[in-house]
Amino acid sequence: MTNRQITIAELPTGALTSAHFKMSDVEMPEAGEGEVLLRVILISIDAANRSWMKGATYRAAVQAGDPMPTYAICEVMASNSPKLALGDIVAADATWSDYITTKAHKVQKLPKVQTLSHLMSVYGIAGKTAFHGLMSIGKPLAGETVLVSAAAGSVGGYVGQIASALGCRVVGIAGGPEKCAWVQEQLGFDACVDYREAGLSKALFAACPDGADVYFDNVGGKVLESAINVMNQKGRVVCCGAISQYDTDTPTGPRNLPGALVVKRLSMEGFIVMDFAHNDAKCLRAMQHWVASGQLKVFEDIVDGLENAPQALIGLLNGDNKGKRLVRVAADPI
Amino acid sequence: MTNRQITIAELPTGALTSAHFKMSDVEMPEAGEGEVLLRVILISIDAANRSWMKGATYRAAVQAGDPMPTYAICEVMASNSPKLALGDIVAADATWSDYITTKAHKVQKLPKVQTLSHLMSVYGIAGKTAFHGLMSIGKPLAGETVLVSAAAGSVGGYVGQIASALGCRVVGIAGGPEKCAWVQEQLGFDACVDYREAGLSKALFAACPDGADVYFDNVGGKVLESAINVMNQKGRVVCCGAISQYDTDTPTGPRNLPGALVVKRLSMEGFIVMDFAHNDAKCLRAMQHWVASGQLKVFEDIVDGLENAPQALIGLLNGDNKGKRLVRVAADPI
Repeated sequence: MTNRQITIAELPTGALTSAHFKMSDVEMPEAGEGEVLLRVILISIDAANRSWMKGATYRAAVQAGDPMPTYAICEVMASNSPKLALGDIVAADATWSDYITTKAHKVQKLPKVQTLSHLMSVYGIAGKTAFHGLMSIGKPLAGETVLVSAAAGSVGGYVGQIASALGCRVVGIAGGPEKCAWVQEQLGFDACVDYREAGLSKALFAACPDGADVYFDNVGGKVLESAINVMNQKGRVVCCGAISQYDTDTPTGPRNLPGALVVKRLSMEGFIVMDFAHNDAKCLRAMQHWVASGQLKVFEDIVDGLENAPQALIGLLNGDNKGKRLVRVAADPI
Repeated sequence: MTNRQITIAELPTGALTSAHFKMSDVEMPEAGEGEVLLRVILISIDAANRSWMKGATYRAAVQAGDPMPTYAICEVMASNSPKLALGDIVAADATWSDYITTKAHKVQKLPKVQTLSHLMSVYGIAGKTAFHGLMSIGKPLAGETVLVSAAAGSVGGYVGQIASALGCRVVGIAGGPEKCAWVQEQLGFDACVDYREAGLSKALFAACPDGADVYFDNVGGKVLESAINVMNQKGRVVCCGAISQYDTDTPTGPRNLPGALVVKRLSMEGFIVMDFAHNDAKCLRAMQHWVASGQLKVFEDIVDGLENAPQALIGLLNGDNKGKRLVRVAADPI
């Protein structure tokens, strides 16, 4: 058994390239007291990997010579802890490696699902964020219209598909004609409006002939303002993110707030996925049902082979993925 | 028995003066089929009286020669309807008169309370708006901090007093040092911040050392933006009005929306008083309890005598009232 590991050869100053990484064969680690030996199966490729190379964030900065840290799904190969047994599937703070050891109390045991990658997409943070925000705050009912921004994103795509499964008319908002077409054709949205075109409010009224009862907002700003214009009385706005406002020094508040809330008796509520952790088991059961019934399509972008992790990250930073990007290091255990 | 009536002598073009009104003795009306004869006890003086002289609104325009319409509390003196009996107290669309007749189905029978004027203030629209918005949307708990804008207004004043009765720390926002002092000394608020002073957010943090859990918003705009800054996680914003935004061509949305809603998991919800009509009986019982216990002080501005109604309206338009302005036409029945 060999253990490959990818380390940072050199910290990038400009754009990331494969020259910033180095893969080597390293010693097979051994589990110490209270530790487990883990085989890495799937690693999550995130823009955050790049930001860790720029300095300390919520974790210490990654330095030259360090292995690249990653969120990973792993199989327990040896355990010196009563908490975990051989063959258990866990989520771990791992590295870009074939095998790692870690303290047993630091990993999270995962439910057994048929396709492990789903634990990082439809049953992971994106799917849970969509489910909890829509069900607990949006509370859509069959026959209502649900409007979703960033509809081609991983959260927005699940929001729309869940709402369709519940019997709602689903209208997306996305950037550009290609994404809008994909949202309708692949995700089955009833309509999708391109926010880059002029006249967003007018286009939303056309796409929502009966108005909108729920708006799942991932973007804030002018798109939120237009979405509020098309809301029906007693509508619910689910505030999940405000991506349009993150990278600007002059944030713009929706000019129809709070007036439209009073006139139309709307509610708006923000949340983060951890607020609803007590409902995670319900979420998993419902999402598995919809995946099994074919009502929820899972879009993942899985790159094969640990050796391709650097290129997978570089490509992600250039936006060339569709759906959640993962690297498969080993096959799912049967 | 004489019946006095005030009519419009001439429609005003500029500022309203007493020359625009004329009081005459008119014939005592008689109740026809399905009608009641009403003795007018109290009339409501509202800025709306003036707007009716400018053209059609939700009612037909008032013309020269017409008696001035008004919302009034009346006693039934004669009834040709099985729905109403002699001595019943009703709310009616009346005129500035001692006596009127109207169809019985057009009036609303009122609960018997000790002081009839309270049906136009603490038990009227202002008190109900404060109670329903605070209780059904704000949901304050003892020990929480409740922030209220337009605290010296009729709605805001009741919001703060109800929240105090529930065991909350109550902080007002009002315009000018005199109003702020009145809110603290007469209404018993724990603190009151002058929004006209520079540094509103800083002043709110000082007045709310534990942050705010409920914000009852009557104004919108920059005051709302500052109030959101001081909200605690899971705080509730009650959207009752947006008076700062009514008289402007360039409304400004709070720049921290929706970002702060996500980060702090806040909710915002708009309402109007009729939405909660099904809870009006509960509201009346609770408000009567707090008035009886002395926890709710009622501020009314009652001008005596039908003949003084024109001057009462002219003065209201100049802002010289404190609390709800009424004109007493006849004494309360015992």
